[in-house]
Amino acid sequence: MPYYVGVDLGATNLRAAVADEEGVVLSTERRATPNGPSGIAVTEAVLAAIRAACADVGVDPEDVTAAGIGSIGPLDLADGSIDNPANLPEGIGRIPLVGPVRELVQSERVYLHNDTVAGVIGERFHSDRNPDDMVYLTISSGIGAGVAVDGDVLSGWDGNAGEVGHMVVDPDGGRTCGCGRDGHWEAYCSGNNIPRYARQLAEERGADTAMPVDSESFSAKDVFDYADSDDFASYVVEKVADWNTLGITNVAQSYAPLVIYVGGAVALNNPDLVLDPVRERLDTTVFNNVPDLRLTNLGDDVVLQGAVASALTAGTGDRTNIH
Amino acid sequence: MPYYVGVDLGATNLRAAVADEEGVVLSTERRATPNGPSGIAVTEAVLAAIRAACADVGVDPEDVTAAGIGSIGPLDLADGSIDNPANLPEGIGRIPLVGPVRELVQSERVYLHNDTVAGVIGERFHSDRNPDDMVYLTISSGIGAGVAVDGDVLSGWDGNAGEVGHMVVDPDGGRTCGCGRDGHWEAYCSGNNIPRYARQLAEERGADTAMPVDSESFSAKDVFDYADSDDFASYVVEKVADWNTLGITNVAQSYAPLVIYVGGAVALNNPDLVLDPVRERLDTTVFNNVPDLRLTNLGDDVVLQGAVASALTAGTGDRTNIH
Repeated sequence: MPYYVGVDLGATNLRAAVADEEGVVLSTERRATPNGPSGIAVTEAVLAAIRAACADVGVDPEDVTAAGIGSIGPLDLADGSIDNPANLPEGIGRIPLVGPVRELVQSERVYLHNDTVAGVIGERFHSDRNPDDMVYLTISSGIGAGVAVDGDVLSGWDGNAGEVGHMVVDPDGGRTCGCGRDGHWEAYCSGNNIPRYARQLAEERGADTAMPVDSESFSAKDVFDYADSDDFASYVVEKVADWNTLGITNVAQSYAPLVIYVGGAVALNNPDLVLDPVRERLDTTVFNNVPDLRLTNLGDDVVLQGAVASALTAGTGDRTNIH
Repeated sequence: MPYYVGVDLGATNLRAAVADEEGVVLSTERRATPNGPSGIAVTEAVLAAIRAACADVGVDPEDVTAAGIGSIGPLDLADGSIDNPANLPEGIGRIPLVGPVRELVQSERVYLHNDTVAGVIGERFHSDRNPDDMVYLTISSGIGAGVAVDGDVLSGWDGNAGEVGHMVVDPDGGRTCGCGRDGHWEAYCSGNNIPRYARQLAEERGADTAMPVDSESFSAKDVFDYADSDDFASYVVEKVADWNTLGITNVAQSYAPLVIYVGGAVALNNPDLVLDPVRERLDTTVFNNVPDLRLTNLGDDVVLQGAVASALTAGTGDRTNIH
């Protein structure tokens, strides 16, 4: 029986899975993503997780047919590595991935994608309708999209097609994004930024709120948890929905998707508060066909499942059309 | 020698060209686009222009190898027709194109694209570098984009990928777009909307201006013509550049293009006033690689040249990859 490996490399954790030829996951191994001392430590942790996942089901890594990797960026696709990821300590440097994994599984068929691209590959693979035109949108510590148009998953020459979290939604530039530029979608609606945005709104409005906005541990979770009982929290949730509506409108206009699957911790933990108000507003903002806005069916596993799906389908001429 | 036909079907004029196998145009025929009584009249005018362009160079239409059509929308790609174009009189109905042109040229190789898609095909064909990742942006009576990512020209299931003029740039929704929704890019920066936007700004600010803002014939041309001598006109030009910067930023984030070629009457007639201020600002707004922002090299002929290029390359496995 042929075996396939998928890897989800995140800033906090990494996971490796072994799957069969139907994409059914047979084993999963999780590791904390090393914080250093160098990128090689991360590479080693990925290889260890793959070895462990293989051992769980008695598979020799050399018998793996193909492997897919969905990773935090920025990717260096030509080199098959990640280069100084923004969410790991500075100076961690380059994290080689494709080369070492090829060595381990003794196969040329090792494919590296950013996590949102892996996400859209996974959604397409597991969707009943397998639409040719769809988006996987993650609302997590950051915001980004994996996009399929006409059955092709978009990459772009440097892998940055779909960096939609850095679209400008606020011409007044009321908040500065982590990238240093003003008014980007992500600066209002990502998990990292929702509490900062709430704090800024509270200061501007002198808001009366029960939320611990001045606490260092104040988080996006607090905002959503208080939304039912606290007027100011509810106001912040509405404002976030306003910005999400603009970002998602611009995604719909750019790519004309039939469906947008949304994942990432912010959406997965608060689907009603995050998605319902956007759904209500898209009719008033989108000129293109209004896409279905759905929570991902794959939950936290969307990137891992996408990595497996890419191992199964890349280079095979299959309809996910990975180039 | 094989001959190829290109058609540029606009709301005001239509043109047909005959080209050789290098894409060199040998003859061009222009007709006014009929205002009715029915769509068939437009079809007939297209066929007449093709026949005339063929006659100019002594080619029998039946000897044409392939034809491309770049057209105003909305397209019905499945039917090979246009359906009630917004810029022709209501009730004109369906304009059949692919079927009748196939009949005329006796070839199955007849390809219909919207005009921006034809534009990006033309830019790629005639660009020295032929980048796989590029955008053709038209700023004309409307705003829209034809997009190539990873060497594939995007269409979308209904042909509406790249309808970027309907991205929201103004969350305050200060202007209503022709589509009826608020805050869309096109509502501020298209040729039809620049004079309306200028009039609105003049009213809001009680502006002192020499421009004939209250005249029925007040046009985008007036705004640009007065920009050197009239402070308010210069202010409007700057505001338009601000909105164009946001729209083009969002295009860069969506598709990660290496180069954005800009065409359409507004840009072609005022390249310095339209493009220079945007170029200066993109560094402060774009997180992705900042694309080259260039005026199209093909001027008014970009859609016609793109239609010819699509005839030459579609279905041949050539690198323009028309599906």
